[in-house]
Amino acid sequence: MTAVEHRTSPVSFEVTHPAGPGTRARAGRLQTPHGAVETPIFMPVGTNATVKALDPDDLREVGAQIILSNTYHLSVRPGHERIRDLGGLHHFMGWDRPILTDSGGFQVVSLGDRRSITEEGVRFRSHLDGSLIDFTPEHAIAVQEALGSDIAVCLDQPVPPGSSSRADVTDATARTHRWAERCLEAHDRPDQALFGIIQGGLESDLRASSAAAIAAMPFDGLCIGGLAGDESAAERRATLDVVVPLLEGDPRPRYLMGLGSPMDLLDAVDAGVDMFDSVLPARVARNATLWVPEGRLNMRNARFLDDPRPVQEGCECRLCRGFSRAYLAHLLRADEMLGYRLATCHNLTFTLDFMGKVRTSIRAGTFPQTMRQLRADRAGTNGADSRDEGRVKSE
Amino acid sequence: MTAVEHRTSPVSFEVTHPAGPGTRARAGRLQTPHGAVETPIFMPVGTNATVKALDPDDLREVGAQIILSNTYHLSVRPGHERIRDLGGLHHFMGWDRPILTDSGGFQVVSLGDRRSITEEGVRFRSHLDGSLIDFTPEHAIAVQEALGSDIAVCLDQPVPPGSSSRADVTDATARTHRWAERCLEAHDRPDQALFGIIQGGLESDLRASSAAAIAAMPFDGLCIGGLAGDESAAERRATLDVVVPLLEGDPRPRYLMGLGSPMDLLDAVDAGVDMFDSVLPARVARNATLWVPEGRLNMRNARFLDDPRPVQEGCECRLCRGFSRAYLAHLLRADEMLGYRLATCHNLTFTLDFMGKVRTSIRAGTFPQTMRQLRADRAGTNGADSRDEGRVKSE
Repeated sequence: MTAVEHRTSPVSFEVTHPAGPGTRARAGRLQTPHGAVETPIFMPVGTNATVKALDPDDLREVGAQIILSNTYHLSVRPGHERIRDLGGLHHFMGWDRPILTDSGGFQVVSLGDRRSITEEGVRFRSHLDGSLIDFTPEHAIAVQEALGSDIAVCLDQPVPPGSSSRADVTDATARTHRWAERCLEAHDRPDQALFGIIQGGLESDLRASSAAAIAAMPFDGLCIGGLAGDESAAERRATLDVVVPLLEGDPRPRYLMGLGSPMDLLDAVDAGVDMFDSVLPARVARNATLWVPEGRLNMRNARFLDDPRPVQEGCECRLCRGFSRAYLAHLLRADEMLGYRLATCHNLTFTLDFMGKVRTSIRAGTFPQTMRQLRADRAGTNGADSRDEGRVKSE
Repeated sequence: MTAVEHRTSPVSFEVTHPAGPGTRARAGRLQTPHGAVETPIFMPVGTNATVKALDPDDLREVGAQIILSNTYHLSVRPGHERIRDLGGLHHFMGWDRPILTDSGGFQVVSLGDRRSITEEGVRFRSHLDGSLIDFTPEHAIAVQEALGSDIAVCLDQPVPPGSSSRADVTDATARTHRWAERCLEAHDRPDQALFGIIQGGLESDLRASSAAAIAAMPFDGLCIGGLAGDESAAERRATLDVVVPLLEGDPRPRYLMGLGSPMDLLDAVDAGVDMFDSVLPARVARNATLWVPEGRLNMRNARFLDDPRPVQEGCECRLCRGFSRAYLAHLLRADEMLGYRLATCHNLTFTLDFMGKVRTSIRAGTFPQTMRQLRADRAGTNGADSRDEGRVKSE
């Protein structure tokens, strides 16, 4: 990989603990205009300028260092220009720590029949009122500049990794590269970083050439897109094992978009990824699935109605320090908002604590042992189901 | 009114500032097993062992000194015996301040076609699964003893005040008295107070005889039921003007059930009432109606989408100190739970601050002037609608 020229970047990334023997896991610090982020990091998703059911104090309490918000959704409602005129996204939602905005690429492309893709961009019908919207690379950048996130992301064209033809992947990857250049050209906000997105599906040669193409551009960070979809864990790992070694020596953070299941995160950290986001912990919480070291508890199960224990002994979250499994099970059955909030607090605390343990072990040089231990913890005891959830990207 | 004999009461009520010239408004302090309550007081309603959208920290922050929870709802789900076995309602919901439980009378009677009333009690079909439940005075007491509230309330038979025949009111009032005696007989929990309920509809002679009958029993407090329904404000005031003078010299607190609109509260305080409850402030908040000194703001109005101001300048609630009208309007349009929580925090803060101002003025001997000022504040400025809402009793 050749060295790249950087403009003066509003973010800086330092790998404080490089990969060691037996793993590519590394720890670092990403400095942004709204403060530092310790990596590897998980970013909770605040689609509509709120992480569902939580307020900013809750977010600080669960340990969120940075959140993601969705460019597409905010551009449609309440409108990025409105948010800009109200002082930007941080002020609008009362969150003074870093924000990364996605590009809208995933949401736009996932609309299926509601959109058409051309070289110019994506034309689609609003999910709210059916009006026609042209989402071009330039528009994606303009929206993110108006929102004022710390980190903007290029518009890309992801394709379902496990079920796309090589021709489709080739085409979408090449377009993603052209759109990346247009995003770079359009981007003009000096206090906002811009990340590029590597595509290439599950085709190792296309992944390799995409990694080379995107890494050659002066982005502030490198996203690995088009995963966390319908691929298997082995296919995902194989893809990371193509991409990450090609980025060795590259000074920029690596961000795998859309991954949120703890065991998936663990494997991707091992593969050398620094940043993650997903709605998964919050969404499954609202569906009454609580994450614990042994796996997951389905709070709809009748036995929890009489269970005086906290969801997770020793957990410091708002749910576990104040309430029983019985109370949570009651709230969820009664469709009470407090139940969704408490469950979300727990799952995000669990996920961010999990990443904290991962960072600590990387710094201590013991990540491979910690990884084995965390996997072994999921033994299906404590009434927990040790299977993983599927993956979802926005809400 | 004759003096009544009291058993050793778990609560004590002291009128610290008796009624003065031109008003029957008075201030006092109700000591309960879970702490003191300053009166006049408004009690937020936590139907399902949670005040909708709020957690106990939110409740403390809005200034709640005591909350009401619904006996009927909790007996059906999750079940009062379950709550007892889990340590009682305070522990179950994480609320260590006083709780008053209603008797279930209003809910049971309001079920209409789903219930039949006999001398024994009310037989009805569960609103959840249609199963048959017999709600007798003894059962209402057993449920409340299991819940362990600080204050229990007798099962009564309210009737719609504005639309009931004199014969119906006479019958229901006499039954309420007989049920009151059965409740007293059944009640056996020494750390729980028991309040009786005065009925009598809008018939002044029936109200007077009901006040005499209930006041003659050794209750710890006296509820005025069967109001806050379909009667006019003038009819309600006329009824209070019959009941309260008859209770002059009676050492017990007076609790008007189901009233929650600020102007209604003001008038009832003036009439000599000490305690109130209603779901109204929280329910209208979830319907995007925010209370301000001038009246109310409908946050669905499009102009608020661009309004950077807080809902109420100077308000210390979680909403007003951190977020704009624009953000709240966005959250409510996007159906985000945080919107409902923030709106509820504001309306309850508004209501409890309002009652705080009322108490302060009573203590200062300036209540009549303050009442005039609070009424004058509602001048329809600030874009606020100065009309009052209707009334609702449970949720």
